[in-house]
Amino acid sequence: MADTPYKEVADVTSKSSDVMWHKADVSSTDRQELNKQKPAVLWYTGLSGSGKSTVANAVDRKLFERGCHTYVLDGDNVRHGLNGDLGFSDKDRVENIRRIGEVAKLFVDAGLIVSTAFISPFRADREMVRELLEVSQFIEVFIDTPIEVCESRDPKGLYKKARAGEIKHFTGIDSAYEAPQNADIHVRTDDQSIEACADQVVDLLLSKHYIA
Amino acid sequence: MADTPYKEVADVTSKSSDVMWHKADVSSTDRQELNKQKPAVLWYTGLSGSGKSTVANAVDRKLFERGCHTYVLDGDNVRHGLNGDLGFSDKDRVENIRRIGEVAKLFVDAGLIVSTAFISPFRADREMVRELLEVSQFIEVFIDTPIEVCESRDPKGLYKKARAGEIKHFTGIDSAYEAPQNADIHVRTDDQSIEACADQVVDLLLSKHYIA
Repeated sequence: MADTPYKEVADVTSKSSDVMWHKADVSSTDRQELNKQKPAVLWYTGLSGSGKSTVANAVDRKLFERGCHTYVLDGDNVRHGLNGDLGFSDKDRVENIRRIGEVAKLFVDAGLIVSTAFISPFRADREMVRELLEVSQFIEVFIDTPIEVCESRDPKGLYKKARAGEIKHFTGIDSAYEAPQNADIHVRTDDQSIEACADQVVDLLLSKHYIA
Repeated sequence: MADTPYKEVADVTSKSSDVMWHKADVSSTDRQELNKQKPAVLWYTGLSGSGKSTVANAVDRKLFERGCHTYVLDGDNVRHGLNGDLGFSDKDRVENIRRIGEVAKLFVDAGLIVSTAFISPFRADREMVRELLEVSQFIEVFIDTPIEVCESRDPKGLYKKARAGEIKHFTGIDSAYEAPQNADIHVRTDDQSIEACADQVVDLLLSKHYIA
Protein backbone atom coordinates (compact mmCIF):
# COMPACT_ATOMS: atom_id res chain seq x y z
CA MET A 1 0.00 0.00 0.00
CA ALA A 2 1.12 3.54 -0.70
CA ASP A 3 2.85 5.55 1.97
CA THR A 4 1.83 8.92 0.56
CA PRO A 5 -1.69 10.22 1.13
CA TYR A 6 -2.30 10.65 -2.57
CA LYS A 7 -1.09 8.79 -5.60
CA GLU A 8 -1.42 9.37 -9.26
CA VAL A 9 -3.45 6.74 -11.01
CA ALA A 10 -4.88 6.43 -14.45
CA ASP A 11 -8.57 7.19 -14.66
CA VAL A 12 -10.15 3.87 -15.51
CA THR A 13 -13.15 5.36 -17.30
CA SER A 14 -13.00 4.57 -20.98
CA LYS A 15 -14.22 8.01 -21.96
CA SER A 16 -11.17 9.79 -20.74
CA SER A 17 -7.49 9.18 -20.80
CA ASP A 18 -6.93 11.97 -18.28
CA VAL A 19 -4.88 11.21 -15.23
CA MET A 20 -6.71 12.13 -12.07
CA TRP A 21 -5.62 12.47 -8.46
CA HIS A 22 -6.94 9.60 -6.50
CA LYS A 23 -6.79 9.08 -2.77
CA ALA A 24 -4.43 6.37 -1.63
CA ASP A 25 -5.56 3.04 -0.29
CA VAL A 26 -6.05 2.89 3.46
CA SER A 27 -2.70 1.84 4.92
CA SER A 28 -1.86 -0.40 7.82
CA THR A 29 -0.73 2.71 9.71
CA ASP A 30 -4.09 4.41 9.05
CA ARG A 31 -5.93 1.43 10.54
CA GLN A 32 -3.58 1.35 13.51
CA GLU A 33 -4.36 5.02 14.23
CA LEU A 34 -8.11 4.45 13.99
CA ASN A 35 -7.88 1.57 16.47
CA LYS A 36 -5.49 3.42 18.79
CA GLN A 37 -3.36 0.35 19.37
CA LYS A 38 -0.29 -1.34 17.96
CA PRO A 39 -1.45 -4.49 16.16
CA ALA A 40 0.23 -7.80 16.90
CA VAL A 41 -0.21 -11.55 17.09
CA LEU A 42 -0.36 -13.13 20.53
CA TRP A 43 0.77 -16.62 19.58
CA TYR A 44 -0.22 -18.97 22.42
CA THR A 45 1.52 -22.33 22.47
CA GLY A 46 1.24 -25.19 24.94
CA LEU A 47 0.07 -28.75 25.44
CA SER A 48 -3.49 -29.91 24.92
CA GLY A 49 -5.40 -28.95 28.08
CA SER A 50 -2.75 -26.41 29.12
CA GLY A 51 -5.29 -23.59 29.07
CA LYS A 52 -4.26 -21.75 25.86
CA SER A 53 -7.78 -21.05 24.69
CA THR A 54 -9.02 -20.19 28.18
CA VAL A 55 -6.22 -17.69 28.80
CA ALA A 56 -6.44 -16.29 25.26
CA ASN A 57 -10.16 -15.65 25.65
CA ALA A 58 -9.73 -14.15 29.12
CA VAL A 59 -7.09 -11.77 27.72
CA ASP A 60 -9.35 -11.01 24.79
CA ARG A 61 -12.22 -10.11 27.12
CA LYS A 62 -9.97 -7.78 29.11
CA LEU A 63 -8.68 -6.11 25.94
CA PHE A 64 -12.22 -5.76 24.59
CA GLU A 65 -13.32 -4.08 27.80
CA ARG A 66 -10.52 -1.56 27.29
CA GLY A 67 -11.94 -0.78 23.85
CA CYS A 68 -9.23 -2.66 21.95
CA HIS A 69 -9.91 -4.21 18.57
CA THR A 70 -9.12 -7.88 18.80
CA TYR A 71 -9.91 -11.36 17.56
CA VAL A 72 -9.16 -14.94 18.58
CA LEU A 73 -8.29 -17.67 16.08
CA ASP A 74 -8.66 -21.12 17.58
CA GLY A 75 -9.85 -24.60 16.77
CA ASP A 76 -13.47 -23.52 16.99
CA ASN A 77 -13.35 -21.08 14.09
CA VAL A 78 -10.43 -22.40 12.02
CA ARG A 79 -10.39 -26.17 12.15
CA HIS A 80 -13.75 -26.78 10.46
CA GLY A 81 -13.61 -23.71 8.23
CA LEU A 82 -10.42 -22.50 6.60
CA ASN A 83 -8.45 -25.61 7.56
CA GLY A 84 -11.31 -28.10 7.21
CA ASP A 85 -9.51 -29.78 4.32
CA LEU A 86 -6.43 -30.62 6.39
CA GLY A 87 -5.71 -33.82 8.25
CA PHE A 88 -2.97 -34.68 10.72
CA SER A 89 -0.08 -35.71 8.47
CA ASP A 90 3.23 -33.88 8.91
CA LYS A 91 2.56 -31.93 5.74
CA ASP A 92 -0.94 -30.93 6.82
CA ARG A 93 0.27 -29.99 10.29
CA VAL A 94 2.76 -27.52 8.80
CA GLU A 95 0.15 -26.21 6.37
CA ASN A 96 -2.30 -25.75 9.26
CA ILE A 97 0.13 -23.49 11.12
CA ARG A 98 1.23 -21.70 7.93
CA ARG A 99 -2.35 -20.72 7.06
CA ILE A 100 -3.09 -19.60 10.61
CA GLY A 101 0.07 -17.48 10.48
CA GLU A 102 -0.92 -15.94 7.14
CA VAL A 103 -4.43 -15.15 8.38
CA ALA A 104 -3.03 -13.69 11.60
CA LYS A 105 -0.82 -11.49 9.42
CA LEU A 106 -3.88 -10.21 7.54
CA PHE A 107 -5.56 -9.37 10.85
CA VAL A 108 -2.44 -7.48 11.96
CA ASP A 109 -2.43 -5.60 8.66
CA ALA A 110 -6.09 -4.75 9.39
CA GLY A 111 -4.96 -3.20 12.69
CA LEU A 112 -6.12 -5.85 15.17
CA ILE A 113 -4.49 -7.58 18.09
CA VAL A 114 -5.13 -11.20 17.15
CA SER A 115 -4.64 -14.18 19.43
CA THR A 116 -4.03 -17.68 18.15
CA ALA A 117 -4.53 -20.68 20.41
CA PHE A 118 -3.07 -23.83 18.86
CA ILE A 119 -0.72 -26.41 20.35
CA SER A 120 1.86 -25.58 17.64
CA PRO A 121 4.37 -27.99 19.19
CA PHE A 122 7.29 -27.48 16.81
CA ARG A 123 9.75 -24.60 17.00
CA ALA A 124 10.30 -24.56 13.25
CA ASP A 125 6.58 -23.98 12.61
CA ARG A 126 6.39 -21.15 15.13
CA GLU A 127 9.54 -19.59 13.65
CA MET A 128 7.99 -19.80 10.18
CA VAL A 129 5.12 -17.63 11.47
CA ARG A 130 7.44 -15.25 13.32
CA GLU A 131 9.26 -14.64 10.06
CA LEU A 132 6.03 -13.65 8.29
CA LEU A 133 5.73 -10.69 10.62
CA GLU A 134 7.74 -7.73 11.78
CA VAL A 135 9.76 -8.33 14.95
CA SER A 136 7.41 -6.42 17.25
CA GLN A 137 4.30 -8.01 15.73
CA PHE A 138 4.88 -11.57 16.97
CA ILE A 139 4.47 -12.19 20.69
CA GLU A 140 5.02 -15.78 21.73
CA VAL A 141 3.01 -16.74 24.81
CA PHE A 142 4.09 -20.02 26.36
CA ILE A 143 1.30 -21.57 28.40
CA ASP A 144 3.54 -23.72 30.51
CA THR A 145 1.43 -26.31 32.25
CA PRO A 146 3.03 -29.60 33.32
CA ILE A 147 1.75 -32.56 31.34
CA GLU A 148 0.53 -34.28 34.54
CA VAL A 149 -1.73 -31.31 35.16
CA CYS A 150 -2.97 -31.25 31.56
CA GLU A 151 -3.60 -34.98 31.72
CA SER A 152 -5.50 -34.70 35.00
CA ARG A 153 -7.73 -32.02 33.44
CA ASP A 154 -8.18 -33.89 30.14
CA PRO A 155 -11.33 -31.88 29.27
CA LYS A 156 -11.96 -33.73 26.02
CA GLY A 157 -10.74 -37.17 27.14
CA LEU A 158 -7.93 -37.00 24.58
CA TYR A 159 -5.10 -38.04 26.90
CA LYS A 160 -7.09 -41.09 27.93
CA LYS A 161 -7.52 -42.06 24.28
CA ALA A 162 -3.87 -41.35 23.53
CA ARG A 163 -2.75 -43.54 26.46
CA ALA A 164 -5.04 -46.28 25.18
CA GLY A 165 -3.40 -45.99 21.77
CA GLU A 166 -6.62 -44.79 20.15
CA ILE A 167 -4.98 -41.52 19.10
CA LYS A 168 -1.51 -41.68 17.57
CA HIS A 169 1.12 -38.91 17.49
CA PHE A 170 -0.45 -37.13 20.44
CA THR A 171 1.66 -34.22 21.63
CA GLY A 172 3.35 -34.99 24.96
CA ILE A 173 2.57 -38.72 24.74
CA ASP A 174 4.08 -40.10 21.54
CA SER A 175 4.91 -36.85 19.75
CA ALA A 176 7.27 -34.14 20.98
CA TYR A 177 6.35 -30.76 22.37
CA GLU A 178 9.22 -28.36 21.77
CA ALA A 179 8.83 -25.74 24.46
CA PRO A 180 9.76 -22.16 23.53
CA GLN A 181 13.26 -21.22 24.65
CA ASN A 182 12.73 -17.48 24.63
CA ALA A 183 9.00 -16.90 24.84
CA ASP A 184 7.96 -13.27 25.15
CA ILE A 185 5.60 -14.26 27.95
CA HIS A 186 5.88 -17.33 30.15
CA VAL A 187 2.59 -18.19 31.85
CA ARG A 188 2.07 -20.84 34.53
CA THR A 189 -1.56 -21.87 34.89
CA ASP A 190 -1.04 -24.40 37.67
CA ASP A 191 -0.19 -21.94 40.42
CA GLN A 192 -2.28 -18.89 39.61
CA SER A 193 -5.83 -18.06 38.55
CA ILE A 194 -6.90 -17.52 34.94
CA GLU A 195 -7.46 -13.90 35.93
CA ALA A 196 -3.83 -13.57 37.02
CA CYS A 197 -2.61 -15.34 33.85
CA ALA A 198 -4.59 -12.92 31.72
CA ASP A 199 -3.30 -9.92 33.65
CA GLN A 200 0.24 -11.08 32.98
CA VAL A 201 -0.37 -10.84 29.23
CA VAL A 202 -2.26 -7.54 29.43
CA ASP A 203 0.52 -6.04 31.56
CA LEU A 204 3.10 -6.88 28.92
CA LEU A 205 0.97 -5.24 26.23
CA LEU A 206 0.67 -2.12 28.40
CA SER A 207 4.35 -1.98 29.30
CA LYS A 208 5.41 -2.37 25.67
CA HIS A 209 2.84 0.22 24.52
CA TYR A 210 0.78 -2.06 22.30
CA ILE A 211 -2.21 -0.67 24.15
CA ALA A 212 -2.62 2.47 26.24
CA MET B 1 -19.42 -18.40 21.26
CA ALA B 2 -21.77 -18.03 24.18
CA ASP B 3 -24.76 -15.74 23.94
CA THR B 4 -24.98 -15.14 27.66
CA PRO B 5 -22.61 -12.71 29.34
CA TYR B 6 -21.42 -15.28 31.83
CA LYS B 7 -20.94 -18.99 31.61
CA GLU B 8 -20.02 -21.63 34.05
CA VAL B 9 -16.70 -23.24 33.38
CA ALA B 10 -14.51 -25.60 35.29
CA ASP B 11 -11.62 -23.92 37.01
CA VAL B 12 -8.57 -25.14 35.14
CA THR B 13 -6.21 -24.78 38.09
CA SER B 14 -5.13 -28.15 39.35
CA LYS B 15 -5.33 -27.07 42.94
CA SER B 16 -9.06 -26.74 42.95
CA SER B 17 -11.93 -28.63 41.47
CA ASP B 18 -14.30 -25.78 42.31
CA VAL B 19 -16.46 -24.43 39.57
CA MET B 20 -16.04 -20.70 39.16
CA TRP B 21 -17.96 -18.05 37.29
CA HIS B 22 -16.00 -16.94 34.32
CA LYS B 23 -16.78 -14.14 31.92
CA ALA B 24 -17.91 -15.27 28.51
CA ASP B 25 -15.81 -15.00 25.40
CA VAL B 26 -16.25 -11.80 23.42
CA SER B 27 -19.06 -12.48 20.96
CA SER B 28 -19.54 -11.38 17.40
CA THR B 29 -22.33 -9.10 18.64
CA ASP B 30 -19.98 -7.52 21.20
CA ARG B 31 -17.46 -6.71 18.47
CA GLN B 32 -20.21 -5.34 16.24
CA GLU B 33 -21.29 -2.96 19.01
CA LEU B 34 -17.73 -1.77 19.61
CA ASN B 35 -17.31 -1.00 15.92
CA LYS B 36 -20.77 0.59 15.58
CA GLN B 37 -21.43 -1.10 12.25
CA LYS B 38 -23.01 -4.23 10.87
CA PRO B 39 -20.21 -6.45 9.56
CA ALA B 40 -20.43 -7.90 6.07
CA VAL B 41 -18.48 -9.04 3.05
CA LEU B 42 -18.53 -6.83 -0.02
CA TRP B 43 -17.78 -9.48 -2.63
CA TYR B 44 -16.61 -7.69 -5.80
CA THR B 45 -16.70 -9.74 -8.98
CA GLY B 46 -15.85 -8.76 -12.54
CA LEU B 47 -13.42 -9.28 -15.38
CA SER B 48 -9.69 -8.63 -15.18
CA GLY B 49 -9.26 -4.87 -15.61
CA SER B 50 -12.90 -4.14 -14.76
CA GLY B 51 -11.90 -1.97 -11.81
CA LYS B 52 -12.78 -4.26 -8.88
CA SER B 53 -9.73 -3.42 -6.82
CA THR B 54 -9.89 0.28 -7.66
CA VAL B 55 -13.55 0.57 -6.66
CA ALA B 56 -13.08 -1.64 -3.58
CA ASN B 57 -10.22 0.53 -2.34
CA ALA B 58 -12.10 3.75 -3.10
CA VAL B 59 -15.07 2.44 -1.07
CA ASP B 60 -12.71 1.33 1.67
CA ARG B 61 -11.18 4.82 1.89
CA LYS B 62 -14.65 6.39 2.15
CA LEU B 63 -15.68 3.94 4.86
CA PHE B 64 -12.43 4.51 6.75
CA GLU B 65 -13.01 8.26 6.67
CA ARG B 66 -16.39 7.64 8.27
CA GLY B 67 -14.63 5.77 11.11
CA CYS B 68 -15.69 2.32 9.91
CA HIS B 69 -13.57 -0.74 10.63
CA THR B 70 -12.74 -2.37 7.33
CA TYR B 71 -10.25 -4.42 5.36
CA VAL B 72 -9.63 -5.34 1.74
CA LEU B 73 -8.59 -8.82 0.63
CA ASP B 74 -7.16 -8.82 -2.88
CA GLY B 75 -4.43 -10.36 -4.97
CA ASP B 76 -1.80 -8.18 -3.30
CA ASN B 77 -2.23 -9.61 0.18
CA VAL B 78 -3.68 -13.08 -0.51
CA ARG B 79 -2.11 -14.48 -3.65
CA HIS B 80 1.48 -14.65 -2.41
CA GLY B 81 0.59 -15.28 1.22
CA LEU B 82 -2.29 -17.50 2.28
CA ASN B 83 -2.89 -18.82 -1.24
CA GLY B 84 0.73 -18.85 -2.37
CA ASP B 85 0.61 -22.64 -2.63
CA LEU B 86 -2.22 -22.63 -5.17
CA GLY B 87 -1.92 -22.71 -8.94
CA PHE B 88 -4.54 -22.23 -11.64
CA SER B 89 -6.05 -25.71 -11.96
CA ASP B 90 -9.82 -26.05 -11.56
CA LYS B 91 -9.28 -27.56 -8.11
CA ASP B 92 -6.94 -24.78 -7.01
CA ARG B 93 -9.27 -22.11 -8.40
CA VAL B 94 -12.12 -23.41 -6.23
CA GLU B 95 -9.81 -23.72 -3.22
CA ASN B 96 -8.61 -20.14 -3.78
CA ILE B 97 -12.15 -18.78 -3.54
CA ARG B 98 -13.07 -21.12 -0.67
CA ARG B 99 -10.17 -19.90 1.48
CA ILE B 100 -10.90 -16.26 0.67
CA GLY B 101 -14.52 -16.89 1.68
CA GLU B 102 -13.49 -18.55 4.95
CA VAL B 103 -11.10 -15.71 5.79
CA ALA B 104 -13.74 -13.12 4.93
CA LYS B 105 -16.07 -14.96 7.31
CA LEU B 106 -13.48 -14.66 10.11
CA PHE B 107 -13.22 -10.91 9.45
CA VAL B 108 -17.02 -10.61 9.62
CA ASP B 109 -17.00 -12.54 12.90
CA ALA B 110 -14.38 -10.03 14.10
CA GLY B 111 -16.86 -7.23 13.33
CA LEU B 112 -15.31 -5.78 10.16
CA ILE B 113 -16.72 -4.81 6.79
CA VAL B 114 -14.38 -6.73 4.53
CA SER B 115 -14.09 -6.29 0.77
CA THR B 116 -12.79 -9.00 -1.54
CA ALA B 117 -11.63 -8.14 -5.05
CA PHE B 118 -11.17 -11.27 -7.13
CA ILE B 119 -12.48 -12.12 -10.60
CA SER B 120 -14.39 -15.09 -9.12
CA PRO B 121 -15.92 -15.88 -12.53
CA PHE B 122 -18.08 -18.86 -11.58
CA ARG B 123 -21.50 -18.61 -9.95
CA ALA B 124 -21.05 -21.88 -8.06
CA ASP B 125 -17.91 -20.56 -6.33
CA ARG B 126 -19.60 -17.32 -5.34
CA GLU B 127 -22.63 -19.25 -4.07
CA MET B 128 -20.32 -21.45 -2.01
CA VAL B 129 -19.08 -18.32 -0.23
CA ARG B 130 -22.58 -16.88 0.14
CA GLU B 131 -23.60 -20.06 1.93
CA LEU B 132 -20.80 -19.70 4.47
CA LEU B 133 -22.40 -16.50 5.70
CA GLU B 134 -25.71 -15.24 6.98
CA VAL B 135 -27.99 -13.79 4.31
CA SER B 136 -27.33 -10.16 5.22
CA GLN B 137 -23.58 -10.68 5.51
CA PHE B 138 -22.86 -11.34 1.83
CA ILE B 139 -23.17 -8.41 -0.55
CA GLU B 140 -22.36 -9.24 -4.15
CA VAL B 141 -20.98 -6.26 -6.06
CA PHE B 142 -20.89 -6.78 -9.81
CA ILE B 143 -18.32 -4.55 -11.46
CA ASP B 144 -19.86 -4.67 -14.87
CA THR B 145 -17.35 -3.38 -17.38
CA PRO B 146 -17.60 -4.53 -21.00
CA ILE B 147 -14.73 -6.75 -22.04
CA GLU B 148 -13.72 -4.34 -24.81
CA VAL B 149 -13.19 -1.66 -22.19
CA CYS B 150 -11.23 -4.02 -19.92
CA GLU B 151 -9.13 -5.11 -22.87
CA SER B 152 -8.42 -1.53 -23.92
CA ARG B 153 -7.25 -0.75 -20.37
CA ASP B 154 -5.22 -3.98 -20.01
CA PRO B 155 -3.13 -2.51 -17.15
CA LYS B 156 -0.99 -5.64 -16.75
CA GLY B 157 -0.85 -6.61 -20.44
CA LEU B 158 -2.71 -9.83 -19.64
CA TYR B 159 -5.31 -9.58 -22.42
CA LYS B 160 -2.52 -9.12 -24.94
CA LYS B 161 -0.83 -12.28 -23.67
CA ALA B 162 -4.13 -14.18 -23.63
CA ARG B 163 -4.88 -13.15 -27.23
CA ALA B 164 -1.40 -14.30 -28.19
CA GLY B 165 -2.10 -17.66 -26.55
CA GLU B 166 0.58 -17.10 -23.92
CA ILE B 167 -1.99 -17.34 -21.12
CA LYS B 168 -4.53 -20.14 -21.29
CA HIS B 169 -7.98 -20.23 -19.66
CA PHE B 170 -8.13 -16.46 -19.40
CA THR B 171 -11.51 -15.23 -18.20
CA GLY B 172 -13.46 -13.58 -21.00
CA ILE B 173 -11.14 -14.90 -23.72
CA ASP B 174 -11.07 -18.69 -23.51
CA SER B 175 -12.75 -19.21 -20.14
CA ALA B 176 -16.25 -18.13 -19.18
CA TYR B 177 -17.24 -15.26 -16.96
CA GLU B 178 -20.61 -16.04 -15.41
CA ALA B 179 -22.07 -12.64 -14.60
CA PRO B 180 -24.19 -12.37 -11.45
CA GLN B 181 -27.90 -12.59 -12.14
CA ASN B 182 -29.04 -10.88 -8.97
CA ALA B 183 -26.11 -8.88 -7.70
CA ASP B 184 -26.86 -6.73 -4.67
CA ILE B 185 -25.08 -3.84 -6.37
CA HIS B 186 -24.55 -3.42 -10.10
CA VAL B 187 -21.76 -0.97 -10.88
CA ARG B 188 -20.84 0.37 -14.32
CA THR B 189 -17.34 1.81 -14.45
CA ASP B 190 -17.41 2.84 -18.10
CA ASP B 191 -19.89 5.67 -17.78
CA GLN B 192 -19.19 7.14 -14.35
CA SER B 193 -16.19 8.13 -12.25
CA ILE B 194 -14.60 5.90 -9.62
CA GLU B 195 -15.90 8.38 -7.06
CA ALA B 196 -19.47 7.82 -8.28
CA CYS B 197 -18.97 4.03 -8.35
CA ALA B 198 -17.76 4.12 -4.75
CA ASP B 199 -20.66 6.34 -3.66
CA GLN B 200 -23.06 3.79 -5.13
CA VAL B 201 -21.68 1.12 -2.78
CA VAL B 202 -21.51 3.41 0.25
CA ASP B 203 -25.10 4.56 -0.37
CA LEU B 204 -26.32 0.97 -0.26
CA LEU B 205 -24.50 0.35 3.03
CA LEU B 206 -26.13 3.49 4.44
CA SER B 207 -29.61 2.70 3.17
CA LYS B 208 -29.45 -0.86 4.55
CA HIS B 209 -28.03 0.36 7.88
CA TYR B 210 -24.72 -1.48 7.71
CA ILE B 211 -23.20 1.87 8.61
CA ALA B 212 -24.70 5.00 10.13
